[in-house]
Amino acid sequence: MEQQQLFVRVALHAWEVNVRRATTIFDKFTDEQLLTEIAPGKNTPFYLLGHLIAVHDRMLPLLGLGEAQYPQLVEAFINNPDKAIQEVPTVKELRDWWTNIHEALAGHFKQLTPAEWLQKHTAMTDEDYEKDPTRNRLAVLINRTNHLSYHIGQLVLA
Amino acid sequence: MEQQQLFVRVALHAWEVNVRRATTIFDKFTDEQLLTEIAPGKNTPFYLLGHLIAVHDRMLPLLGLGEAQYPQLVEAFINNPDKAIQEVPTVKELRDWWTNIHEALAGHFKQLTPAEWLQKHTAMTDEDYEKDPTRNRLAVLINRTNHLSYHIGQLVLA
Repeated sequence: MEQQQLFVRVALHAWEVNVRRATTIFDKFTDEQLLTEIAPGKNTPFYLLGHLIAVHDRMLPLLGLGEAQYPQLVEAFINNPDKAIQEVPTVKELRDWWTNIHEALAGHFKQLTPAEWLQKHTAMTDEDYEKDPTRNRLAVLINRTNHLSYHIGQLVLA
Repeated sequence: MEQQQLFVRVALHAWEVNVRRATTIFDKFTDEQLLTEIAPGKNTPFYLLGHLIAVHDRMLPLLGLGEAQYPQLVEAFINNPDKAIQEVPTVKELRDWWTNIHEALAGHFKQLTPAEWLQKHTAMTDEDYEKDPTRNRLAVLINRTNHLSYHIGQLVLA
């Protein structure tokens, strides 16, 4: 196997493992448990579910793979903390969207070649990319995997 | 820059960012805060500090870079849960060892070539590696970065 392909496979594997781990955790929570704070005054798993869908959804435009599917989540789950916004989707909707966004991403990811993974993401200018070519699609994938692990660490405390 | 070098730089950058993030958090904790459970019945930051040193220390032999420097941590911080083992190092010792192990790893990491990052780690046989060449040094680095993020997510709840 080509070296570049190996690098991509390693990074994708880490992403997939963590998505599966989070899916298992969210699946185990009852709807009521989803709405119970992880620790007093901390986020609910419901908020983290919405937050992770919103962040992963934004990977589509960021990686140049398409438009965000759930832009309505940004206000409640990225721009604001837990319980600040009254109008939020139902638990059922979030559970469905979690599945959808990861299927959509997986479909795109398997199409990208190693060279495409090293292309700049859309949030940076050509000039910035010239200066620092490590700010590419692969960096986004690795950073989002770490972000996901970070919140999995919190979910397991619930 | 060569593609392989780019891949390695992206993965190393993620590791370094997370080590710095954890260092900042541990530095901010007073010795007393280190010994206070993150949430009732959960780990102390002291345990997570020892756990992360022990896990990162084992990267040296796992990556074929040298012997573990703090094997005495394994029993208290990997094989057993928090507060199960009475004999543990002092807070001062752990703080020093945290610095030492990350300096040691950084020194080794900057020597490795992209091809060396794709070599198998020492915990697997040649036969296993033949079957799955993604189980290499880079996979260890990416996995340990995710593991670190996971515990950083818990530390920030303290």
